[in-house]
Amino acid sequence: MDLNNLFAASIYEARRSVLRSSVGSGRIILLGNNESSVNFKDNWYPFRQDSSFLYYFGLSQPDLVGIIDCDNETDIIIGNELTIDDIIWTGPLPSLQACAERVGIRQVISWTDYSFDIRQKHHFLPPYRGDHTFQLMNYLAISKEEVESGYSIPLVQSIVKQRNIKSSEEIKELHKAVDVTSAMHLAVMEAARPSMKEYELVGVAAKVAYDHNVHMSFAPILTIDGQTLHNHYHGNTIKDGDMVLFDGGVESPLFYAGDMTRTFPVSGSFTTKQKEIYDAVYQAHELAIMNLKPGILFRDIHLMAAAKLVEGFIDIGLMKGNAEEAVRAGAHTMFFQCGLGHMMGLDVHDMENLGEQYVGYTPDLIKSTAFGLKSLRLGKALEEGNVLTVEPGAYFIPALIDKCKAEGLYQDFIHYDVLETYRNFGGIRVEEDFVIRNNGPELLGKALVKSSDAIESVRKKALA
Amino acid sequence: MDLNNLFAASIYEARRSVLRSSVGSGRIILLGNNESSVNFKDNWYPFRQDSSFLYYFGLSQPDLVGIIDCDNETDIIIGNELTIDDIIWTGPLPSLQACAERVGIRQVISWTDYSFDIRQKHHFLPPYRGDHTFQLMNYLAISKEEVESGYSIPLVQSIVKQRNIKSSEEIKELHKAVDVTSAMHLAVMEAARPSMKEYELVGVAAKVAYDHNVHMSFAPILTIDGQTLHNHYHGNTIKDGDMVLFDGGVESPLFYAGDMTRTFPVSGSFTTKQKEIYDAVYQAHELAIMNLKPGILFRDIHLMAAAKLVEGFIDIGLMKGNAEEAVRAGAHTMFFQCGLGHMMGLDVHDMENLGEQYVGYTPDLIKSTAFGLKSLRLGKALEEGNVLTVEPGAYFIPALIDKCKAEGLYQDFIHYDVLETYRNFGGIRVEEDFVIRNNGPELLGKALVKSSDAIESVRKKALA
Repeated sequence: MDLNNLFAASIYEARRSVLRSSVGSGRIILLGNNESSVNFKDNWYPFRQDSSFLYYFGLSQPDLVGIIDCDNETDIIIGNELTIDDIIWTGPLPSLQACAERVGIRQVISWTDYSFDIRQKHHFLPPYRGDHTFQLMNYLAISKEEVESGYSIPLVQSIVKQRNIKSSEEIKELHKAVDVTSAMHLAVMEAARPSMKEYELVGVAAKVAYDHNVHMSFAPILTIDGQTLHNHYHGNTIKDGDMVLFDGGVESPLFYAGDMTRTFPVSGSFTTKQKEIYDAVYQAHELAIMNLKPGILFRDIHLMAAAKLVEGFIDIGLMKGNAEEAVRAGAHTMFFQCGLGHMMGLDVHDMENLGEQYVGYTPDLIKSTAFGLKSLRLGKALEEGNVLTVEPGAYFIPALIDKCKAEGLYQDFIHYDVLETYRNFGGIRVEEDFVIRNNGPELLGKALVKSSDAIESVRKKALA
Repeated sequence: MDLNNLFAASIYEARRSVLRSSVGSGRIILLGNNESSVNFKDNWYPFRQDSSFLYYFGLSQPDLVGIIDCDNETDIIIGNELTIDDIIWTGPLPSLQACAERVGIRQVISWTDYSFDIRQKHHFLPPYRGDHTFQLMNYLAISKEEVESGYSIPLVQSIVKQRNIKSSEEIKELHKAVDVTSAMHLAVMEAARPSMKEYELVGVAAKVAYDHNVHMSFAPILTIDGQTLHNHYHGNTIKDGDMVLFDGGVESPLFYAGDMTRTFPVSGSFTTKQKEIYDAVYQAHELAIMNLKPGILFRDIHLMAAAKLVEGFIDIGLMKGNAEEAVRAGAHTMFFQCGLGHMMGLDVHDMENLGEQYVGYTPDLIKSTAFGLKSLRLGKALEEGNVLTVEPGAYFIPALIDKCKAEGLYQDFIHYDVLETYRNFGGIRVEEDFVIRNNGPELLGKALVKSSDAIESVRKKALA
């Protein structure tokens, strides 16, 4: 634990104080993460602390639990100090007491000295790791089903309310994350050469992360098959005529996420077909950004961007009819099957595990179950201090084309004969990260080439 | 799932057939691994299949369970085929049926169609992931405690017997793993420059892994504080006078592990003190290798290497008395606190989760609980086809020096006054991987410089 790698203690104290007031009564349990085993107990994945634990307690080390007692206004960290045996293997480290004080906690209690009083009301979050479920079953003497259904909605709502609005020190961290993310994308865009393997480019990206001593914020997508949305295969050889879609990001030193996507031509120039589709996606992206402001429903921006994309596709001759009608009929989901963006913060999909209905929607705005909108993680009205991604795309998925055609869908809006000539087109996405400000959106990180012309000029220079 | 990335089906069939005969009766459950969550459910660590599942069923994809029915001589894979919805997100993939046939399994049963008959005897392994514990509780209607205590010793023993003896096709994979591991070590040794950060060198290592499209077999240790045995901090600046200890390895395409360590001087030359300690460790390493042959207890090689190290330390003036007596008294554990090596295969510590008493010891040879020997994972007599690491080291741990001195330990064997001048020396380890052969040990992977002179010449050339 590097004690320099923390915000000021007063920040954590203030966050806990707000949470305590907001939840009102009972004891809040925030489970820190434990080590996560790869192929045997003591072979571990890189440690990643739970994000809510980080937000309120800051410490990035395993085997801790944080307690915020609303009734007694005390905060406790439960955890064990290192023994001499530990120190032989791990070297001298700051004591847990010193770590805890650094985040404003005076009370550290060892596991042998702490017991949960199950007569009290405890608030906990929905677990996403098996060991957390076992911990809660054990601490609170409840069943697995009770753990799964018993998470505290007041706690979830209170945390979402705080974490959805980023403070200035958080935005600094987010800029750091997206700065390195942007550098990583530029490095990949400059390094790509025909006949390289996709995995070599993933290595180029990873090297940038290592050189900044940070981790990736999620498993990167780097592929010539950009139409495959969740693609973690990196075995293809890239060649002239292909486009490379790279969706990747890194964390800041304090674990805030970056998340960007660029799509570029291997040869240095987009083909006419590629450029037309790229520019349609780009226009949708630009329209979305122009509309980012407090008060507007992000769902509506999503639909506006979808309509803009359809307009572009009508111009190309892939679609027909009226763009708004096409979007109402869902015809855009032939190409744009996912959402326009999501909240971002300590998690790349911020607080996804607390439930999208709380993070991205409201009681008055329930997430749609329609194909396309069901994948939109964020629908609600934007507020100053929200941080989110904008990532429209166009994906030509043969299995989906065949399915829709066979079912006779969208015949009023799609020229299926033209679409056939795009079967093997692939996919394009353009993604950036923004803070919502009253005076217009603030781009996170160093601006990176984005228009088709600007991307071509970087590629041509790299290949020269 | 890349269907080229597998052994021949007959190999998996033969392995299962041997296991079935060896266990004799009942149903063997081999749990494949599931995705492992980082900071929310759908943000995953890189997938790693369970090693015993890989050994008997080969397929490296999540959410599978393998059943080997000893009573009916049938093998089953339980898992779900992709739906059209999955294919939209993941792209077209070979069917599970096709994957299963590729490893000699004809019977694929979906999760909805399979139910465990809890009246039958089921054999399962000790779980190392929380979700596996929940799966077994659910499948077999047993408690967490029954899962933890109820693993099948016949199954463990049968698997250990098979997996401890590597076949020729496994040894080919191990060579591949250690070839890339060796290249990774050379790259780090050549790249290091004064004023670099440790994490930049970890990036150099990782880049080699990415360039070969393989994963690290464990979290690398790369540090100027080589005395800290489990050191995953990479934030130090390296400088002239420091030694860098790098312990890292990669997996082969079929997930066999490599594991090597080299220690080298940043400046290009070891200091006199460093060279003397290095050479003592090197002599212990060489003596151990010379003695690797079927029939000898690895515990005895460990003790011989320890005595050789002590002889070297007596020559230097750090220790005194008789080397064998010093080892019997445990005085070598002031410097060499861990074991000489461990089995290696599909796991870097092969089958560690099945229990060291089964993998590295026998009913007649129980692991010692003495400091030092308690960390020796392998003690039993070697057999042709065993694959293991040889990794003696010397670690100067201030906390341990102070503790032993305060307790008056090893006064007949250690010159504490001289030792004081080595307080901040650091640590040295030299590690290679071998197959035990009747005609002498076979080094795995491409040979890499190892003597102090040879390492200095690589460093000098790199710095020139």
